[in-house]
Amino acid sequence: MSAAGRAERLAERVAERDLDALIVGDLVRPGDSGPDAIANVRWLTGFTGTSALAIVGPEERLFLTDFRYTERAEREVHESFERARVEGRMVAELAKRLHGRVGFDDMTTSVHWLRRLEEEAGEGVELVPVQGIVEDMRRTKDGGEVEAIAEASRLADDVFEWTAERGLAGRTEADVARAAEARMRELGAEPSFPAIVAAGPNGAQPHAEPGERPIGPGELVVIDMGAKLDGYCSDGTRTFASGEPGDEAREVYELVLASQLASLDALRAGIGGAEADAVSREPIEAAGHGEHYGHGLGHGVGLEVHEAPRLGKTSEDILRVGDVVTVEPGVYVPGRFGVRIEDLVVVAEEGTRNLSSTPKELRVVG
Amino acid sequence: MSAAGRAERLAERVAERDLDALIVGDLVRPGDSGPDAIANVRWLTGFTGTSALAIVGPEERLFLTDFRYTERAEREVHESFERARVEGRMVAELAKRLHGRVGFDDMTTSVHWLRRLEEEAGEGVELVPVQGIVEDMRRTKDGGEVEAIAEASRLADDVFEWTAERGLAGRTEADVARAAEARMRELGAEPSFPAIVAAGPNGAQPHAEPGERPIGPGELVVIDMGAKLDGYCSDGTRTFASGEPGDEAREVYELVLASQLASLDALRAGIGGAEADAVSREPIEAAGHGEHYGHGLGHGVGLEVHEAPRLGKTSEDILRVGDVVTVEPGVYVPGRFGVRIEDLVVVAEEGTRNLSSTPKELRVVG
Repeated sequence: MSAAGRAERLAERVAERDLDALIVGDLVRPGDSGPDAIANVRWLTGFTGTSALAIVGPEERLFLTDFRYTERAEREVHESFERARVEGRMVAELAKRLHGRVGFDDMTTSVHWLRRLEEEAGEGVELVPVQGIVEDMRRTKDGGEVEAIAEASRLADDVFEWTAERGLAGRTEADVARAAEARMRELGAEPSFPAIVAAGPNGAQPHAEPGERPIGPGELVVIDMGAKLDGYCSDGTRTFASGEPGDEAREVYELVLASQLASLDALRAGIGGAEADAVSREPIEAAGHGEHYGHGLGHGVGLEVHEAPRLGKTSEDILRVGDVVTVEPGVYVPGRFGVRIEDLVVVAEEGTRNLSSTPKELRVVG
Repeated sequence: MSAAGRAERLAERVAERDLDALIVGDLVRPGDSGPDAIANVRWLTGFTGTSALAIVGPEERLFLTDFRYTERAEREVHESFERARVEGRMVAELAKRLHGRVGFDDMTTSVHWLRRLEEEAGEGVELVPVQGIVEDMRRTKDGGEVEAIAEASRLADDVFEWTAERGLAGRTEADVARAAEARMRELGAEPSFPAIVAAGPNGAQPHAEPGERPIGPGELVVIDMGAKLDGYCSDGTRTFASGEPGDEAREVYELVLASQLASLDALRAGIGGAEADAVSREPIEAAGHGEHYGHGLGHGVGLEVHEAPRLGKTSEDILRVGDVVTVEPGVYVPGRFGVRIEDLVVVAEEGTRNLSSTPKELRVVG
């Protein structure tokens, strides 16, 4: 799907909501956004900088950036967009360009900038809160996007193998994490988020920061990492053992693996995010570990490492063909150890295609 | 200054504004913020995770985080705070805890989450928009903070020297940037932002992305990078030459250096950010390059690489003792080359202390 095609489809959705235009971009820190905050602009226009807004409507394709990025915009932004260079404040320029009923995303617009926009927009402009229109379109990955994510995932799988081959016992979590990130960079990617390496009792914290304690023998080691290539992210987790881990750890490992396999088996277009989550929870609750599984089953991945849809107890999302989601149940036994196993899959016409290839039987790496 | 002392002083400011409490933290993506978005929480409480809110008032020190971060909060959050674990949505828990007149920062609160907070808060809660109270306090760095930033800056200076020694001509911008970032990591830091390496005509884009074109002989090469150590950032820029660059490039280099030295000389507590910016602009405009200097003179640096105060044409900030700011004039000649020279300084009782030590005469590195 070209940028022109995406803008065309977005314009249709804008018209369906009786809007004259939609503001796309970050109105929290306009002019100084992070790359995640303007993922919508990148998806829509091709622009990879961090200061830009777009306005899209049936009659309108406008792209705004500032002095620092005009040359990049010339190269990157699809020619269907009129490109304008903002001289002063981003929002002042935006306000001048609005007319009629204009949608803004109330999740990515700050109270401050909405007020300024209201003050500065001309007579007759009506600002209408909407939510997630572009995020919803971004869910459905086209072939090129799936390949970009698959390539990032393959690269991360290579780094899982490389990490396991180097062994874990005696190294610190921080060292394992740094080495894995450096390896990703050698292979031409960036980490899509800071790698998590959590051994023994630290593994009981789903988002532990890698520490300086050497990994002991026979500990479970949760490694959660992803690569980013050409803007697209991967995300995956394996739990290795640094030597024979003991019966209880093995039992919990097998329990999480059973949950993960059952979840993969259940995933398909049409299943609800809450329903999929319940499938993953069933065996874990039956084994008495329900309270040790305190997060949702998964989330969408694409230009952002966390994006729509969401698989969890309160999710109202229904899976569709083209969704790329993680499947990552976990059990965390406080003070003892944790297990999480995470694959990345694309929802296909029939079932799913798994983009993760690192084996899932418990690997004792020493 | 301990976390308890910071909370105490914040509570005084809250009381001065006739507020019963202030919400500190990110209400744009509560529960899934970036580290920059919760820098205020880190400064206030010591917590280094990315999902947390705090409530501070004369009678109140409350810290909220979720399941993933409760163990970390136990270790990190100052004991003067009551620590609570959020079971459901962050904002629902927050709403339950509010009473009286409560300030929220309208720059870091989305339209959506303010509405939810208003709907869910109890009777008699009045939500009052405020701005930058914690950011303003964060401007004044204490001794430990200045040392952390100085250490990050020393490390980045080592990487400037290391980079220059390896030479530039024949390498690609991307290779130079990757190598510098890898070197920072070897030395135990993270880059505080992706390094910019922009040679020849690319140097005319202040925020160029490092590219795959080999750097030619005799080009000016703008290298803008910083290190992050213990959460604190540095930021600095040098422009090197990959061989003898020619008369015009040398002239522009000397012009930018003169502007930078005059700016450093003018900086002191009490000067306005706009006034300091004007000092930097004067020689550049006199030389006919005014339109080629399209950004402000500098910005504050601390837990975030861009924070208060701002030095620029429209700044209303007045410099104070303890501010840490960049001083970074530049001239960008479209299609030809760019020059930027950036130091990081602390505003002291008398003048400033320069935290950057890489020499500033034009270095021809080959």
